[in-house]
Order: sequence, then C-alpha cells, then structure tokens
Amino acid sequence: MVDEVGAKEKWRKIIFEAETPSGRLFDVIILWLIVISVVVVMLETVDPIEAKVGNTFYILEWIFTGVFTFEYIGRLMTSRHPTKYAKSFFGIVDLLSILPSYIGLFIPGGQALMVVRVLRLLRVFRVLKMVRHIRGSTILMRALFQSRAKITVFFVTLLLITLIAGTLMYLVEGDSSGFTSIPTSVYWAVVTVTTLGYGDLAPITPAGKLLTSLLVLTGYAILAVPTGIVTAEIAKADSNETSVACPSCGVHGHLPDAKFCRRCSAELH
Amino acid sequence: MVDEVGAKEKWRKIIFEAETPSGRLFDVIILWLIVISVVVVMLETVDPIEAKVGNTFYILEWIFTGVFTFEYIGRLMTSRHPTKYAKSFFGIVDLLSILPSYIGLFIPGGQALMVVRVLRLLRVFRVLKMVRHIRGSTILMRALFQSRAKITVFFVTLLLITLIAGTLMYLVEGDSSGFTSIPTSVYWAVVTVTTLGYGDLAPITPAGKLLTSLLVLTGYAILAVPTGIVTAEIAKADSNETSVACPSCGVHGHLPDAKFCRRCSAELH
Amino acid sequence: MVDEVGAKEKWRKIIFEAETPSGRLFDVIILWLIVISVVVVMLETVDPIEAKVGNTFYILEWIFTGVFTFEYIGRLMTSRHPTKYAKSFFGIVDLLSILPSYIGLFIPGGQALMVVRVLRLLRVFRVLKMVRHIRGSTILMRALFQSRAKITVFFVTLLLITLIAGTLMYLVEGDSSGFTSIPTSVYWAVVTVTTLGYGDLAPITPAGKLLTSLLVLTGYAILAVPTGIVTAEIAKADSNETSVACPSCGVHGHLPDAKFCRRCSAELH
Amino acid sequence: MVDEVGAKEKWRKIIFEAETPSGRLFDVIILWLIVISVVVVMLETVDPIEAKVGNTFYILEWIFTGVFTFEYIGRLMTSRHPTKYAKSFFGIVDLLSILPSYIGLFIPGGQALMVVRVLRLLRVFRVLKMVRHIRGSTILMRALFQSRAKITVFFVTLLLITLIAGTLMYLVEGDSSGFTSIPTSVYWAVVTVTTLGYGDLAPITPAGKLLTSLLVLTGYAILAVPTGIVTAEIAKADSNETSVACPSCGVHGHLPDAKFCRRCSAELH
Repeated sequence: MVDEVGAKEKWRKIIFEAETPSGRLFDVIILWLIVISVVVVMLETVDPIEAKVGNTFYILEWIFTGVFTFEYIGRLMTSRHPTKYAKSFFGIVDLLSILPSYIGLFIPGGQALMVVRVLRLLRVFRVLKMVRHIRGSTILMRALFQSRAKITVFFVTLLLITLIAGTLMYLVEGDSSGFTSIPTSVYWAVVTVTTLGYGDLAPITPAGKLLTSLLVLTGYAILAVPTGIVTAEIAKADSNETSVACPSCGVHGHLPDAKFCRRCSAELH
Repeated sequence: MVDEVGAKEKWRKIIFEAETPSGRLFDVIILWLIVISVVVVMLETVDPIEAKVGNTFYILEWIFTGVFTFEYIGRLMTSRHPTKYAKSFFGIVDLLSILPSYIGLFIPGGQALMVVRVLRLLRVFRVLKMVRHIRGSTILMRALFQSRAKITVFFVTLLLITLIAGTLMYLVEGDSSGFTSIPTSVYWAVVTVTTLGYGDLAPITPAGKLLTSLLVLTGYAILAVPTGIVTAEIAKADSNETSVACPSCGVHGHLPDAKFCRRCSAELH
Repeated sequence: MVDEVGAKEKWRKIIFEAETPSGRLFDVIILWLIVISVVVVMLETVDPIEAKVGNTFYILEWIFTGVFTFEYIGRLMTSRHPTKYAKSFFGIVDLLSILPSYIGLFIPGGQALMVVRVLRLLRVFRVLKMVRHIRGSTILMRALFQSRAKITVFFVTLLLITLIAGTLMYLVEGDSSGFTSIPTSVYWAVVTVTTLGYGDLAPITPAGKLLTSLLVLTGYAILAVPTGIVTAEIAKADSNETSVACPSCGVHGHLPDAKFCRRCSAELH
Repeated sequence: MVDEVGAKEKWRKIIFEAETPSGRLFDVIILWLIVISVVVVMLETVDPIEAKVGNTFYILEWIFTGVFTFEYIGRLMTSRHPTKYAKSFFGIVDLLSILPSYIGLFIPGGQALMVVRVLRLLRVFRVLKMVRHIRGSTILMRALFQSRAKITVFFVTLLLITLIAGTLMYLVEGDSSGFTSIPTSVYWAVVTVTTLGYGDLAPITPAGKLLTSLLVLTGYAILAVPTGIVTAEIAKADSNETSVACPSCGVHGHLPDAKFCRRCSAELH
C-alpha cells in the first residue's frame, strides 16, 4: 500500500514536474509528439500528400491519440487533485486533444473537429515551463498586464478611427470600388491603418486616395503608441528584475545606486 | 421649489456624473445604446440584412432617436450652464446624433446623413471617464502633446519625402504603369513609405523598382523616429509620475513605494 | 551712403532673419507661395484639371517665377557674402526653383524639368527655422547622427539578407512566378522584409512560401533594431537636453540628481 | 630563412590585419572586388544584359575567381594555423567563393551553383572589422543575445497564433478563396500578422474578414513586444557601456565625460 502511494508520487513527479531527469525526458517526448502530431494534422489537409500517405497519417493519428489518452489517464490518476486538474485549462486542452479522434469514430466526416485537434497545440505552452525562458515570459506578461489600461485606451481609439474612416470611405467611394457596406469599409480601414494593405479593396477616386493617405499616416503616428507603452514597461520591469533584495526586510527592486533600503532604511550590501 | 432644485440636482448627478450607482447605471445604459445603435447603422448598409430585417432596424432607429432625444433634453435641463453645454463638443455631438433622424423625415433618401449618425459614436468617449483607464489616457495624451514639436518635424519631413519620391516616380514610370499624375504618384509614395503597399500601383521599370526599394528603406529608418519619440516621452511621463525628491539630500527618482531615501536613508514625506 | 548701407541691412534682416515682425511676415508669405506653387506644379500633371485651368496655371507659374526671381536677387544683393550664399545649399535650391521656367522658354516641352521645380519645395525647410519646432529637429538630427554607426551596420545587414533571400527565391521560384532575375528577386526581398508587400511578386511554390515566412519574420525581428537604436538615442538626447548648466564651467547635460559638476566639481545650484 | 619568415609575417599582416596602410589597402581592394563580383553575378541573370555583355561577364568572372583563388592560397600560406583557418567560417566562405567556377568547368549548366557564388557576399562582413562600426555592432549583437530568451518566447507565441489563426481561416474560408490547406493558411496568417499583406490570399467571407481584423490587431499589439525588448536592451547596453562607479560614494551611471562624482564631488579615475 505504501509502495503504491510511493509509486503514484514517483509517477506524479515524472508526469507533472520537470526537475528529475525522467520528468524532463517525459516532457521532451510529449513535446515532440505534440509537434509531430500537429504537423500531421496540417499535412493531412494538403491533398496530394494525403492521397499518397493518407494511410500512414491515419495510423499515426491513432498512435498519437493512444499516447495522449494514456497521458491524460496518467495525469488524472497521479494528480493530487484529479477534479481540479480535469477542470483546469490544461486538463480541458488534454481532453480536447484526444476526444475528436474518438468522436470521429461515430460521426464520419468530422471535418469540423480539426479545430479541436489543433487545441492540442496549446499543450506546447505547458512544456515551456521546463525551459528557463519562463523568466522572459514573466517579464513580458507583467509588462503587458501593467500596460492593460493604456492598451485598452489605445484599442478603443483605434476602433473609433476605423469606424469613422470606414464610414467616410463608404460614402466617398461607394459600391463601384467594392466598398459595398460599412462593415466592409471598416474591414478596409483596419487593413489600411495597420499597414496590412492586401489591395483587395483600394481607393479609386481622388478623395478616397486622400482619405487613405490621411488614415495611414494617422495610423502610423498612433501605432507608435503601443510600442512606446510596451517598451517603457519592459524597461521598468527589467530594471526591477536586476536589483538586489534588502537583507533586512527583503524588498526587491532597488535602484542601481541605492545604498539604503527604501522601505526600512537598512543598509544594502 | 426647494424640492424641484433638489430633484434637478439629483438628476444632474445621475446624467452628468458617474460617482453614484444610479449615475454609473445611466452611463452604462447609454454606452450600450450607443454601441447597439452604431451596429444597427452599420448593418443597415449590408443589403441582404437590410432586405430581411430593415423594418426592425427602422423601429430600433426611432427608439434610439427617442432615447437620445430624451437624454439631450435631460442634459439641457439639468445642466448648470445649458448654453455652455449646448455649445460644447459633446453637446454638439449629442445634438448631431439625433438631428439626422428628424431631418430624414423631411428629406427622403438622406443617405449623406449617415456620416452624422456615426458621430454618435464619439459619445463613447464621454463614458470612458467612468473607467479608471483615464490615468493611462492622461499619460498618453501628455506624451503625445509634449512630443508635438518633434512629431510636426517628422510629418513635414515625411511630406517632403513623399512629394519628391512621387514626382521622381511620375517621371521614371510614366502613364503606362498607372502613375498618371503627380498627385497619384504622391498617393503611391505615401502607400509605399508607410509600408501599406496595396499593389494597385507598383513599379514596372527597373529604375522604378530601385527607387521603390530606396524609398521604403528610407521610410523604415525614418518611421523608427515617431516610435522613438513617443517611447521616450512615455518613459519620461511614467517616471515623472512616480518621482519624489529626498527632503534631506535631494536625490530624485525614488521608486513608488519608497519610504526612505536610497542614498542617505532619510525618511521621505 | 550710410543710408544705403542701413537700407541694405534693413532688407537683409527682413529677408534672411525671422526675429522682426516684417522678417516673419516675409517668411510666411514666401512659405505660402512655395506651398501654392508646389500644388500648382502637382495639379498641372492632372490632365482634366490642366485642360480646364491650364491657362491660369501658366499665368500663376510666371507670377511665382517672378516673385522667386525677385527674392533670389534680393538675397544676392543683401547677403553679407553673396558668393557664399550662391554656393550654399539653399542658394542653389533658390536658383533651381526659378531656372526651369526660363529654360522652358527656349526648350519647348521641358517635361523633365518638373523635377527641378519640385526642388523649390526644399525651401520650405528654410522657413522652418522660424517656428520653435527647431528644437525638436535638433534632438532628432543629433539622435540620428549619433546612431549613424549602428544604423550603417543595420543597413549592411539588411542588404546582405535581401541579397541572399532574393537569390534563394530566384532559384526556388524561377521564371514562372515572375522571379525572372536576381535584381528582380532582390526587389521582391526588399518589398517583403520591410512588410511593404505589393503582391506584384508573390511566392507560388510551397518552398517559396516557407522562405517568405522565414524572411518576413527575420525581417520583423531585425527591424525592431533601428527603432530600438533611435529610441535609446532620443531618450539620451532628451535627458541631456533638460538638465542645467554648471555655473562654474558651463558644462551641460548633468544627470537629474547631480549636486556637483562632473567636469570641475563645482556645486550646482 | 629568417628573411622568409619575415616575409611571411609581413604578408600575413597585409592579408589578415587592417592596422597597416598596405593591410587596409588590401582589404579595400578585396571589398570592392567582392561588391563588383556580386553585382556581376546578379546582372548575369538579367537576360537582356547577359545577351549583350555575357562575354565580358565570363571574362570578369574568371578574373574574380583568379584573384579570390590567389587570396585563398595567400591566406592558407600566411596564416599561423592554416587548418584552423580552412575550417573556420570565413575559410569555408572563401573556398566556396571560388569552388563553383572550377566545378562549373566540369559540370556544364551549373545553374544551382549560383547560390554558392552568392556566399562570396558573406566575405563583406570580414572587411567590416576594418571600420569603426564594429562598436555599434557589438552593442547590437549583445542586445540581441541578451534578449534571446524573450525573443524565443515571442516567436513561439507568434507561431502558435499563426497556427491557430491559419487553421480557423482554413475552416472559415475553405477552398473557394484559395485557402486550400492548413500550411497555405498558416502562410497567409504569417503574411497577415506581420502586416506584409501581399493580397494573393485575402478573406472573402464576412467571418473571414472579421478574423483577419482580429488577427492583424492582435499581431500589432504583440509585434510591439520585440521592439520593446530590443529597445530596453539597447538602452541598458548603452548605459552600461558608459558607466563608472564613484570610488568614494559608489554612485553609478556617470556621464561619459565625467571627471568628478556628481553626488560627492570625488574625483573619478
């Protein structure tokens, strides 16, 4: 019995953690299986390849499904809180990565389930915790999170600009240039203000061309804003990251030239 | 009589302010009505949808007009300075958001008034004061405002580059490639220098392609400038925001949570 | 005689400087004449407009030429160093802005001289010295100038990437997709790496599409570099700009928390 | 014998170093030969030019090959560690820049070797060490290197977004709009998220247009991140570059020309 608990704990460490060599190996194998299975899912949609090696893909698909099913069951069995895991983001992703294959047995032509299979991809993120890249990720996330108020203001502004520019363009250009409705024109405005510029919709009249020029220049001036916001936040987050902790009260994020703690006035080394 | 004044003041707080629960509720309702009415205005221009539910849209339009008319009258009546409000930016926007519907009764086929209806959208900004996003907005506005001299220099430079590049392109490519006039060529130069690149006008001759390459690379080097300007301003605005000087030794740039000076350990106020 | 010298000096101040009210008025008039004359040059190339008001344009053109000739002669006569002015950048621009009209009298169909006429536009920059925007301009120029080594490295890197990517694409796609020569392919690579993306040349083969994806992503990572360089320089230039001068030795650019001059150790106020 | 060693050392300095005038001259000549030979390789692929001056190109090609062969042999003979040089990056590049011409004698129609010839271009980098630009290059490289963890996170995120968006688009648009497979759709997603926007693939359905708008806006918010990362790193690298600590009070971040500490007026070393 004790042995069983020890075995469960051992397996839990292998499956859920990446500190032990076998745990790291498990993560690497799963990561590669995910990458390959996603590539297979993608190549299945290329007709000439599917025609040639479709059978191999079919077999591979069931191998992936089998392995991921075992992994899912393993996680459920070794997790300390199985229900919590099953309801977590990654638990749902894990389930969604195997479900489509089984459902496909009952519903033939499960084309629409391809989406679900791609969700398998999200599991790549979990293995990311293995790599030391996580530190960079934390700074990025914090920078984006702390800028959320500014980024919201930016997007609302952008939305208003595209709505107004799209409506003006609809009035200026009209149906003959392809601006058949305001939603279509707003789509054009988004494509223009972000400098995407497919060219499927382009101004024909002089007034339309002038409006386009103004829109894209305005867009450019405004699009410098999110870059500025993110840069300022990253610079701030970076400098917080690289400083020492106070030996007395443990506060982080001192400035480079600090001699005394800003919270408790203890001398820093 | 006192009661009436009190009632007016109560209504004014509901309509103009967002500190009370009912004031916030009023703002949220108006915000949603604005969003829905704008969506309706947009969808009215999509022919298949208009054909199907045009009648519903017609009724909805009059409901929106009714509510916004009540809101406008309410603002006029409860405002402390009705004339000032009527002449303010938002007062005019409020009026413009109801006027088109009434004018439409007399002038059938008021297609051109659609623009005016979209102005209704600008009222979204007013409700923005409700959310705490305003702080981010202030920093952004200040950053843009303090950079206005540099941004003007940047745009004048950009204008000169597009004028010269457009004229050169008009001479190099000529009518056969679609560069039929200098204004058209300048439009092409704006589309190119901002990396929008519709492809409706593209160089055909080798000289034109070389000129395009030089223009877009120059553009890229120059377009780094507004981003740099805005970033530097945001970083400065951010750090100014959070800075206190030490009362003892005068060191600036303390962190937001500092209680003691990092240089001399004196207590900060 | 003294009077004549005084008159010359008075006119010199009006023409060359912008400190006196009449000097500023002179600058504003010339600025507006430049803008209008450039607009006329541009509109002359639009056939329907030229057909209608070509005669008016012809008369206007000679008025502009007359005024700019007077201005040029005035500058020559009032300048303290006429030869130096004539050989300076703006002296040549001033001459080039009137020469084409006169040459056009002898050479009919002087289409190619249109370029020269646009040089007139460069004179706009001179009047810029009037506005206080010059301060922003100085910081921008200094930031770009101090980054010139880094920007050169960046452009050489970019050139190498486009050369290699263009050659690979020429080999991968071949004539059938329009990649008819390496210069054409390099043009495509520039259009792609800057995210301009006209679409006149686009990959057709799977290998070409993969190469395009890699190129544009590489381009994106690399194009963050000039922005970073310029931003860092502007931030530095900005902070230098806003600090006090040493009362003892006059050195500028002290750090915000400086108490002593970094050059002569004198106490700062 | 001593003479021979001295001669070898003299030639080594000329060929490998750029400190002596003759060494610098050697580098400049090689640099220009590289540039011209690359231009020749490029122009050879332009059919009308090749038809006219193909013979001249053929002769030039053998002159370049001859000179570069002599250079390669010279480097091998004068190098202190010939094997190490032959195996180094530049040794291989040097070999690859002459090999194709010789192989071409035996294998007619060596079209595919053009790639190898372009590798000749990489030798331009070697001569870069001559110019003082190297300092800028070091800072750039260090900035990119120190940001590698964050840049990896960014690219993995971007890859996941393009995979998911591409798959969704494949399901939404389908074959009729050209989205014939997931790899093609992912190519479209890369072209869209980087704002390249060729227009060879563009959404046709309303749902596809909405998805495109969301993708390009998401892309824009995210693409601000690498710029922010690189900017923050460059700013840090810049300030580290120029910073000395005060020997008396330890304050960091002095300006490059500081002789005295700005806080305690102690002399800096």
